[in-house]
Amino acid sequence: MKLATRKSKDRDGELLVVSRDLQTAILTQGIAPNLQYALDHWSDVAPQLQKLSDELNAGKAKDTFAFEEEKMHSPLPRSYQWVDGSAYLNHVELVRKARGAEMPKEFLTDPLMYQGCSDSFLAPRDPILMESEEWGIDFESEVAVITDDVPMGVDAESALKHIRLIYLVNDVSLRNLIPQELGKGFGFLNSKPPSAFSPVAVTPDELGSSWKDGKLHLALRTDLNGKFFGKPNAGIDMQFNFGQLVAHAAKTRPLAAGTIVGSGTISNKDRSVGSSCLAEIRMLEIIESGKPSTPFMKFGDEVKIWMDDTAGKSIFGTIQQKVKKYERM
Amino acid sequence: MKLATRKSKDRDGELLVVSRDLQTAILTQGIAPNLQYALDHWSDVAPQLQKLSDELNAGKAKDTFAFEEEKMHSPLPRSYQWVDGSAYLNHVELVRKARGAEMPKEFLTDPLMYQGCSDSFLAPRDPILMESEEWGIDFESEVAVITDDVPMGVDAESALKHIRLIYLVNDVSLRNLIPQELGKGFGFLNSKPPSAFSPVAVTPDELGSSWKDGKLHLALRTDLNGKFFGKPNAGIDMQFNFGQLVAHAAKTRPLAAGTIVGSGTISNKDRSVGSSCLAEIRMLEIIESGKPSTPFMKFGDEVKIWMDDTAGKSIFGTIQQKVKKYERM
Repeated sequence: MKLATRKSKDRDGELLVVSRDLQTAILTQGIAPNLQYALDHWSDVAPQLQKLSDELNAGKAKDTFAFEEEKMHSPLPRSYQWVDGSAYLNHVELVRKARGAEMPKEFLTDPLMYQGCSDSFLAPRDPILMESEEWGIDFESEVAVITDDVPMGVDAESALKHIRLIYLVNDVSLRNLIPQELGKGFGFLNSKPPSAFSPVAVTPDELGSSWKDGKLHLALRTDLNGKFFGKPNAGIDMQFNFGQLVAHAAKTRPLAAGTIVGSGTISNKDRSVGSSCLAEIRMLEIIESGKPSTPFMKFGDEVKIWMDDTAGKSIFGTIQQKVKKYERM
Repeated sequence: MKLATRKSKDRDGELLVVSRDLQTAILTQGIAPNLQYALDHWSDVAPQLQKLSDELNAGKAKDTFAFEEEKMHSPLPRSYQWVDGSAYLNHVELVRKARGAEMPKEFLTDPLMYQGCSDSFLAPRDPILMESEEWGIDFESEVAVITDDVPMGVDAESALKHIRLIYLVNDVSLRNLIPQELGKGFGFLNSKPPSAFSPVAVTPDELGSSWKDGKLHLALRTDLNGKFFGKPNAGIDMQFNFGQLVAHAAKTRPLAAGTIVGSGTISNKDRSVGSSCLAEIRMLEIIESGKPSTPFMKFGDEVKIWMDDTAGKSIFGTIQQKVKKYERM
C-alpha cells in the first residue's frame, strides 16, 4: 500500500491511503489518525489499512478524493529518530580523493552513519529557508526506510523484516559549515538542517522485484532548475543494504517504531548517470581541474527528486523545493 | 510546578503534577494526556496545570495519591529531539590534556554539541542493558532543559524565554566505542545509547534564585555503588549558558516543542568536589600517573544522580541505574 500525510492543524497531519497510480486518496481516520500512530500499532493497523488500499485500488472505496501532492507533508512530519547512512562509497571515495586522501579500509565493513534532526521535517514542496547562501546550500537525493520496533543487537537479515515503509529524502546539507563542525569532532548539527521526504511512502510489496536484497533497484532522478542532474541506480554500488544499515543503528540500542534510516547520497561509479548532490560534482571538478566551478544553491534555485517504476510511473511523488531567504522575525 | 510521567501501556505514559516536596501527585488527564501534548499546546495547557499544582501544594486537590519515583518513566519517554552540549570546558580540557593536546581557542566561543538519540529514553530506575562491558560503560551527570517552539536564528537572550522545564539526565556513554566512531568523522551513534532523565521536571520558577543567568546554581550529586563520587556546582565553570546552547542548536533550523538541550557533563575546576563521569577520573589519573586505574562500569554497578535545593531537599527525584547484561532474544 501507499501512504501519505496531508497537512492539517495537527502537527502530525492526517494519514491518507493513496492509490497505486497516485490519482486518488482516502482518509484513514477511523483506523489511524496519523502515521506515527499506525507505526506504533502496526500489527493491528496495517491489515486495516491494507483493506482500505485494496478497496481504493479496485475503485470500490467510498469518500475518495483527488490526491494532491502539493497539500502533503512529509509522511512523518516529525519523527523520534532519523539516522542517515552513507552507503554509496563511490561518493565517499570522491570526497576523499578531492582532498588527496584515501578512504580508510574499514569503511568497507563499518558503515558511516549520523544521527540527524527529526523534530520538524520540511514538506516535500516546502521552500528550503536559509539565512545565508554562504552556508553552501546543497541537496542530497536518497532512499530511506521506516522501521517498526527493532530490538537491540538485531542481525542484518532479521533487520530487513522490520522495514515497513520505503520512500525518498532530500537530505539538505550546508556544505560550508561542515568542515568546522566535523573538525570539532561531535558530528553534524548546524550543517544538517531539516530534511524533506517524498509525498508518498510505500510498503516493500509495492515495489515488486525492484526491492531485492535489501536494496531498491531503480534509478533515482534529480533535476536542478528544470535540467537533468542525475539518475543513478539506487541498487548499484550500495556497499551496505538497508538490513545492514538498520542493524548498525541498533548495535547498542533498540530502535523505536517510526525510526527512519537513510541510504546516504545515491552515487554510481558510472559517471554517465550523473550525481545526487552538488558536492559530488564539485569534487569531480576539483579532481579534474584543481578547483570547483559549479556553485552551491542560490536563493531561487529549485531541486526536483523522484523515482519512476519500470513502467515509467512515479512511485513516491515528487520532492520539489526552492531555496528562499529566511528573514528573522 | 513539577511534572512527572507515570509508566503506562501507552508509549508516552501518563502526565502527573507532583507536589513540591515530591510526596503526592495527581493525574492531569482532563488537561493533557502526556507531556509532549502539554508542550505542543503549552500556552493553553500550562495555566491549567499550574492551577492543579497550586491546589495540590495547598492540600486542596482531590484524587491525589502518593508519588512513587520508581513507577515513573523519564518525563518525556521519547522526544523528537535531544541535543547535548559540552558546556563545562574543564571537562573538555582534561580530556585533551590526557592525550597531550591543547583545547582549540574557538571552543571558548563555539559550543560543542551533538545530536543524540531520543526515540526511547530509559526510565530513571531502568537498568542500563548492554551486551558487553568491553564497550567502556560510563555515566554522565548533567542538567537539561526542555523548550517550546523556538524560531530559527533566535538570539541567546530570547532563547532563555523558550525554556519551559528543567531536569537532570544520565547521558550513558560507551567510551571504548568513541575513538573509532569519532575517527570516522560523523559523530556519536553506537557510542551514545539511550539516556535516562530524572523522575521530575520543573518549571524555572520552582528553582527560585538558584536559576539565574541561564544556569542552575546548585550542586549535582553523583554516587557510585553507594559511595560519594561528585558534587560539582552546575552554575560554576559553565562556559555557555542554556540560552547560548539553545541558540546554537537553532542557528540553521527551528526547534520543535519538546526539544531537550543538555549541558554536558558537569565539571568544576575545583577538584575537591569530584566528578560527574568515570572518563574524567581516568583522565586525571592519566595526567597524574600515565595510565588510568579506575575501571568503567561493570555489570552490577549502580549510579545515583540527584540535586538538592538550598534547604537540602531533592528537587527532581533520583536517577538510580544498575548496569546489567543484555541478552539477545
